[in-house]
Amino acid sequence: MDLLSIKDPSFLKKMNKEELEQLSGEIRQFLIEKLSKTGGHIGPNLGVVELTLALHKCFDSPQDKLIWDVGHQSYVHKILTGRAGEFDTLRQYKGLCGFPKRIESEHDVWETGHSSTSLSAAMGMAIARDLKKEKSFILPIIGDGALTGGMALEALNHIGDENKDMIVVLNDNEMSIAPNVGALHKVLGKLRTAGKYRWAKDELEYLLKKIPAVGGKLASTAERIKDSMKYFLVSGMFFEDLGFTYLGPVDGHDFEDLFENIQYAKKTKGPVLLHVITKKGKGFHPAESDIIGTWHGTGPYKIETGDLIKPVSAPPAWSKLVSETVRKLAREDERIVAVTPAMPVGSKLEGFASEFPDRMFDVGIAEQHAATVSAGLAIQGMKPFLAIYSTFLQRAYDQVVHDICRQNLNVFIGIDRAGLVGADGETHQGVFDIAFLRHLPNMVLMMPKDENEGQHMVKTAIDYDAGPIAMRFPRGNGYGIPMDEELKTLPIGSWEVLRDGEDAAILTFGTTIPMAMEAADELSQMGISVKVVNARFIKPMDEKMLTDIMSADMPILTIEEAVLQGGFGSAVLEFAHNHGFHRTVIDRMGIPDYFVEHGSVDKLLEEIGLTKEQAVSKIQALTPKKQKRA
Amino acid sequence: MDLLSIKDPSFLKKMNKEELEQLSGEIRQFLIEKLSKTGGHIGPNLGVVELTLALHKCFDSPQDKLIWDVGHQSYVHKILTGRAGEFDTLRQYKGLCGFPKRIESEHDVWETGHSSTSLSAAMGMAIARDLKKEKSFILPIIGDGALTGGMALEALNHIGDENKDMIVVLNDNEMSIAPNVGALHKVLGKLRTAGKYRWAKDELEYLLKKIPAVGGKLASTAERIKDSMKYFLVSGMFFEDLGFTYLGPVDGHDFEDLFENIQYAKKTKGPVLLHVITKKGKGFHPAESDIIGTWHGTGPYKIETGDLIKPVSAPPAWSKLVSETVRKLAREDERIVAVTPAMPVGSKLEGFASEFPDRMFDVGIAEQHAATVSAGLAIQGMKPFLAIYSTFLQRAYDQVVHDICRQNLNVFIGIDRAGLVGADGETHQGVFDIAFLRHLPNMVLMMPKDENEGQHMVKTAIDYDAGPIAMRFPRGNGYGIPMDEELKTLPIGSWEVLRDGEDAAILTFGTTIPMAMEAADELSQMGISVKVVNARFIKPMDEKMLTDIMSADMPILTIEEAVLQGGFGSAVLEFAHNHGFHRTVIDRMGIPDYFVEHGSVDKLLEEIGLTKEQAVSKIQALTPKKQKRA
Repeated sequence: MDLLSIKDPSFLKKMNKEELEQLSGEIRQFLIEKLSKTGGHIGPNLGVVELTLALHKCFDSPQDKLIWDVGHQSYVHKILTGRAGEFDTLRQYKGLCGFPKRIESEHDVWETGHSSTSLSAAMGMAIARDLKKEKSFILPIIGDGALTGGMALEALNHIGDENKDMIVVLNDNEMSIAPNVGALHKVLGKLRTAGKYRWAKDELEYLLKKIPAVGGKLASTAERIKDSMKYFLVSGMFFEDLGFTYLGPVDGHDFEDLFENIQYAKKTKGPVLLHVITKKGKGFHPAESDIIGTWHGTGPYKIETGDLIKPVSAPPAWSKLVSETVRKLAREDERIVAVTPAMPVGSKLEGFASEFPDRMFDVGIAEQHAATVSAGLAIQGMKPFLAIYSTFLQRAYDQVVHDICRQNLNVFIGIDRAGLVGADGETHQGVFDIAFLRHLPNMVLMMPKDENEGQHMVKTAIDYDAGPIAMRFPRGNGYGIPMDEELKTLPIGSWEVLRDGEDAAILTFGTTIPMAMEAADELSQMGISVKVVNARFIKPMDEKMLTDIMSADMPILTIEEAVLQGGFGSAVLEFAHNHGFHRTVIDRMGIPDYFVEHGSVDKLLEEIGLTKEQAVSKIQALTPKKQKRA
Repeated sequence: MDLLSIKDPSFLKKMNKEELEQLSGEIRQFLIEKLSKTGGHIGPNLGVVELTLALHKCFDSPQDKLIWDVGHQSYVHKILTGRAGEFDTLRQYKGLCGFPKRIESEHDVWETGHSSTSLSAAMGMAIARDLKKEKSFILPIIGDGALTGGMALEALNHIGDENKDMIVVLNDNEMSIAPNVGALHKVLGKLRTAGKYRWAKDELEYLLKKIPAVGGKLASTAERIKDSMKYFLVSGMFFEDLGFTYLGPVDGHDFEDLFENIQYAKKTKGPVLLHVITKKGKGFHPAESDIIGTWHGTGPYKIETGDLIKPVSAPPAWSKLVSETVRKLAREDERIVAVTPAMPVGSKLEGFASEFPDRMFDVGIAEQHAATVSAGLAIQGMKPFLAIYSTFLQRAYDQVVHDICRQNLNVFIGIDRAGLVGADGETHQGVFDIAFLRHLPNMVLMMPKDENEGQHMVKTAIDYDAGPIAMRFPRGNGYGIPMDEELKTLPIGSWEVLRDGEDAAILTFGTTIPMAMEAADELSQMGISVKVVNARFIKPMDEKMLTDIMSADMPILTIEEAVLQGGFGSAVLEFAHNHGFHRTVIDRMGIPDYFVEHGSVDKLLEEIGLTKEQAVSKIQALTPKKQKRA
């Protein structure tokens, strides 16, 4: 059928199994073609084609609530709810969002991006439903990886206890982004191979009959043996223990199996855990055979071969630079261990892991635990490198405050994907970390100007032994500049003058440095001489340099690819007023007070005014006398 | 024995059961007497007397690591490690800390205050031990309540998977601070009553023999039935599923039972869960019979009767004022529901709970889930009141960012214990919330000047339907001022001039207002006329009033009982420079860049310079011309 003609999922009601199977194929073909041009989360979506069709056939969205955990597996749902025509704009500026978005459709009832929120959201909605005496099915759809996130476990515990009507669809593809870790994963593995309740029931009854009737003291024991049979009878005792009715495992690519179990789930009171086994990348060979997670989310690719279409000879990725430098240092420093919350691939820790398998810890989607495990390692004299994306570090804020900073422990936090991340959009922008880390006592926070300084900063972080130290670095690749052979240690809190000038000073760091340099060039043509400072330490700042600049009565422009409120620019304002420079003229550029959506980083920078033109115009405004003379 | 003579726990090695029992009594007497004067966490400590003695007898601290989760149950441990003599100063300024503190003793190997961190810390230490090829036992001691915290569950999952040698002591007193909630609690309940493995083993074997040998197709089924017997055989199948060896339940007040199981645990490879049942408040009737949690932590009390020695006729507590106002409004607004992460008592929600049992949700120690459940409720049109302490809101930072603010949902966050909390000390000071909330888009943040304004702010928050709104309020009691009969709604972002003046302006809010008024009085005597503004909205600010003050070229002093970096004062600096008031002289008072320890709030304010004297002196410095004239 013509997928573009789909307005809403109601047409599915009339479709039979064969028609659905054909539609599945068409949807797969559509996704493989569209995503070959735009890139996107191809693997997760190919895995849930039948599941999504089955859910939309058996339930009535948006009356019934489909709550997609993480949300990157919602493409099929988007097609079925009238958005097939927008896939050419997927994850592009002002285009279709890669995650559920309420503004796009009434069928998107909950927005996500970060994992493990769906069960809590579902619980809130279920409580609201019952208080309002409404009728509806509530269906969080959560992956086996996301299930290990602490808040998902908190929610399971609460849902089971309150006995709310809800169908938790566990989309078990045996891996989240990286192969899963954790004991819970082993529980699921047992369930997967255990076969089904119905398959064994007859045989079980036969065997139960063979247990002789017993009386007296043994009666209660016999009763309890029969109780304990439940562990066999219902394979999902783990979930049953938590108060759920366990159904499964269900073949997530078999419509009959799906329908049968969904119908059973619909009739069941209280919370149900519907364990569905799916295959990530199903139907597209390159994605299906992927074992290391490359095909979780990709850029554009060639359909025939599955080769990724990458920019020709891109410089090394920032993640790789950082992780490989840590690896190099780990050869001589046995204290170094690496901790990642489920991002060994994204953080490019494969090399470290293969060289130091005993010193590499992928703890699963568990940012809080990752941070405090690092604290525990540090307190025993190790030097943990906690590799974590800026946006996911938000999950570990309290652990950074209470466990790492308060105990002043030597944890090196590598804050990956800091700044705007582009296509993943507002749930993933790494723009808050300066504002949520800068006010923490004992924290050192830095960002390098390029990959060469980056490697020296890694060395600096490893050598630093006076407490926590964090280095933020952007998504994407370095500049491809020459790298020093020998690593050096930067003095903590030292800034660097990149270009001298007398009329004004730009203080900036990281990705915005090239733009600042260009602005200074252009201003120089206008006769305005601008000092550009690489303010690579965000905390502590270079107080001597700040004092010199402020004493010279230079106007200052701060530039940061991070939120303005409470950010680096605010730190400069605080310094000025703390030190009596009340008359210093300071202006700030950064990210304004709203959530920045998806799109290319360049487009986004333009939207929020983080551009050379703005910098030039702001410096002009700060130097009115020079203006008149020029 | 003389408890004051104890230097370290080595003397316990030679003690027999009877001597230990006598010592237990002496320790209980000591605690009851000392705490009757200082206050403190009496209930939790009376519950772990025998357990702590047994652990220190059977292990070698600090070589073996005792990691106290939360840490308020470490008083017995403090006595046994040479600190009995300091109990007169418990939780007082520069006195003995109420939680483990590394600077106090080498036996305090991990510092806590917030719950659920011990398992992650233990895992970090266990990894470090094994990498360094050291030998030691690692013993996190965690309560049944703390076990439901997401990060503890993340840690269980990781520990079970990695099969690390570790003895997790589950101190199960059937309640944390309030009676426990959650399905996991029911699992523990079943284990408590299930009796012991050894008790049933013989009988089980007898029954197993009665199952006939089977061949052919049924053989594997029979095998699996025998496997499933493990669920019976080892009652803690839930933990066994996660990879732990379950031992228990153990009577936590019976030395023989404790020794026997501890010895067994020491011999067991891999992670062990030692399930110990204790009675909170054991040995002190008022605490033992407490069912609502009053005796979890208390102020001073009369030993004979257990009556608390409270200030005569104290005004109502802030928590009570807020929760009771919510309750009043809930009578007319069915959208209102209350959510608390295990603090129904601390947040004084008992009244709300008894009047609206269906609209009250205690989700257990699970701050992340609490925040996102609130988001789920709001998205379905309810008006959740999320009652949470400032310091615990840190745990839900990402949920506030990603789920509440990003989706701009109508959640009312009641931030209790904001500002300095006193005796609980650095882990509990509520001083970061402004800095971690102010930079979030869509957030409204306010703090009332007194309880009358407080009740109007609750009304304001309930009426506000444009997104999240948070009201912070301090620990302790109101001023006892008259209360308006009728509730009103304050205009969002509106400040209030409390006292007019021309020479300088003090902008402040909440608890620091009386001090600012006194400073203005004193300055007035010196001929300096100071405007004092109740800056009750921290975000958004009153831009008109700020513009007026800055246009009048008045120097400004901001005062806040919160961290200076990124706080309210920084917001004022940002406003000035955003709006071209580059020459406005602004000084700020607040909490400097270090973790503030325990002590009375007055002492702490003095230490950090948040005093009237400082305010006077700062205003004098800001108004030098007035100075000369005066």
